[in-house]
Amino acid sequence: MNSGRALYGAIDLGGTKLLSLVATKDGEVLAEDMRPSHTDDGLDAVLGRMAESLHDALKTAGLSLRDLGVVGVATPGAVHYERGIVSEAPQLPGWQDVPLRDLLRRSLHTEVQVENDATAAAVAEHAFGAGKGVLHMLYLTIGTGIGGGIIIYGRPYRGKSGAAGELGHVVVQADGPPCGCGRRGCLEALASGKAIERKAEELLSAGKSPGLARLVARGERATVELLEQAAREGDKGAARIFAEAGAWLGLALANYANIFDPEVIVIGGGVANAGDLILDPAREALQAQAMRLPLRGLRLKAGELGPRAGALGMVALLRAADV
Amino acid sequence: MNSGRALYGAIDLGGTKLLSLVATKDGEVLAEDMRPSHTDDGLDAVLGRMAESLHDALKTAGLSLRDLGVVGVATPGAVHYERGIVSEAPQLPGWQDVPLRDLLRRSLHTEVQVENDATAAAVAEHAFGAGKGVLHMLYLTIGTGIGGGIIIYGRPYRGKSGAAGELGHVVVQADGPPCGCGRRGCLEALASGKAIERKAEELLSAGKSPGLARLVARGERATVELLEQAAREGDKGAARIFAEAGAWLGLALANYANIFDPEVIVIGGGVANAGDLILDPAREALQAQAMRLPLRGLRLKAGELGPRAGALGMVALLRAADV
Repeated sequence: MNSGRALYGAIDLGGTKLLSLVATKDGEVLAEDMRPSHTDDGLDAVLGRMAESLHDALKTAGLSLRDLGVVGVATPGAVHYERGIVSEAPQLPGWQDVPLRDLLRRSLHTEVQVENDATAAAVAEHAFGAGKGVLHMLYLTIGTGIGGGIIIYGRPYRGKSGAAGELGHVVVQADGPPCGCGRRGCLEALASGKAIERKAEELLSAGKSPGLARLVARGERATVELLEQAAREGDKGAARIFAEAGAWLGLALANYANIFDPEVIVIGGGVANAGDLILDPAREALQAQAMRLPLRGLRLKAGELGPRAGALGMVALLRAADV
Repeated sequence: MNSGRALYGAIDLGGTKLLSLVATKDGEVLAEDMRPSHTDDGLDAVLGRMAESLHDALKTAGLSLRDLGVVGVATPGAVHYERGIVSEAPQLPGWQDVPLRDLLRRSLHTEVQVENDATAAAVAEHAFGAGKGVLHMLYLTIGTGIGGGIIIYGRPYRGKSGAAGELGHVVVQADGPPCGCGRRGCLEALASGKAIERKAEELLSAGKSPGLARLVARGERATVELLEQAAREGDKGAARIFAEAGAWLGLALANYANIFDPEVIVIGGGVANAGDLILDPAREALQAQAMRLPLRGLRLKAGELGPRAGALGMVALLRAADV
């Protein structure tokens, strides 16, 4: 089936879902498979599920592992890129110094490369999406938490231990709300999906959002999606939560503009689906707060690759490494 | 006089002083001249004073401009490195889009390169000082304000407009004290010499620092130097001001560790002379607040080049550019 085209397999392991795909070196997706990751089942079960998922994607495309040069894996946590080791990953219970690359090499019988998922998504938006062709780009992914990736001189910047780019774990409001990382007032504690849902719950309990109250079924929790629907249907309390999260995001982006003076900042991840509700106030705060020169020519853009960003980033990385 | 060795001239233009020196490519200083910069006198007067100062340094060494391959100039403000233009510099009244390189070329009749002073100091500490031999390094200079420089892959990172590295103008305490940049709670508003002196004045007025009160002459202002002396002589209020500034610095450094995962963070500038008084609490806050992996192997060091850092950085830059 492989008619001379270089084909790559890629797996994006998330805290709740895993996505496998087969793509050409230009990022054209030939087939994909998505399923729950069930990370609570432990490492072996997750490894097995990753292999199954990739096999199913290959089957859909009428391909087999032999048709792939190499498989790329995007994973949460701090990744030692050269050695393919996941040092720590709060989203993956029990993972500590997991030699993910070597384990998957053995189970897939093929070459494997591993990268942090936010860095991979940054690479994807730079190669195929909102940051195409720029030299210096920042990427923030806003989902349950907030991750980040840094592109400098057109290449991913990883730092000394592969841990660079934790753009959600910077304190912007000392004495702010507690963050999962143990500090207070990190951007993640102010503008992530989790932070937004916490505020939505408070709004509900206080009886201050009739729009949201109508949408949330009895006994269920308020989600970012329901909050967005309530805001779009005119609920002011719901809209204000997005506006506040956006303002915090914009303050952090102004910090990043002053630090990096990048050409583009790309916002991806599930919460970015709320689009203008969060990006408009973020843009406003960025404009009002960053210094003049970094602002000149800076573009703030929504990610273009959606949930495929992590996996497509692995395709771009493998292509760049020419493996 | 130039017996085959490559010699460089360098001028560091500061808000209050300017320093000229002549050095070998290895950073050995042959002669130097320091004088007030009197930036209030306007651009032409400052340019004249820079030329005079460099000529005097050359004279001391028995050299002339003809012995220099090129002259490097470190200046406050955002600098377009390729074009040698100072876009904006709050410390230099009236400077806006000043073509400093071309103006000095004409007045010195020699080749000139211009760079931001904090970036130059970062390059110097990386080439000759506390960051020798590392790949990824951050530099913060704490004087009246707080500036920064970023070394990535062993080279200065400037961003799209030469404005990158404003490591003092990041908000860490939203709703904190006002900053010169127009925002509130920037690191500069919490841990700079100016911020420390403002707190020292408050302490004095409140009659809460007998040690400092003894040192400050009637009608004079409290300086960082006097506050340091008071702290070293056992004044608890004075020591607490340094400890608080150090804690804010450490919080910002933890942010930078999570963002950059660097090998070394170097702290230079006048306030860094207070040494352990500010660096010990900063190190403590950094250790307590940064993520585990970026902390592993990270070193926090005092700058080694003192007030020569900016000028020596120009020597290193010119050497690297082979001009």
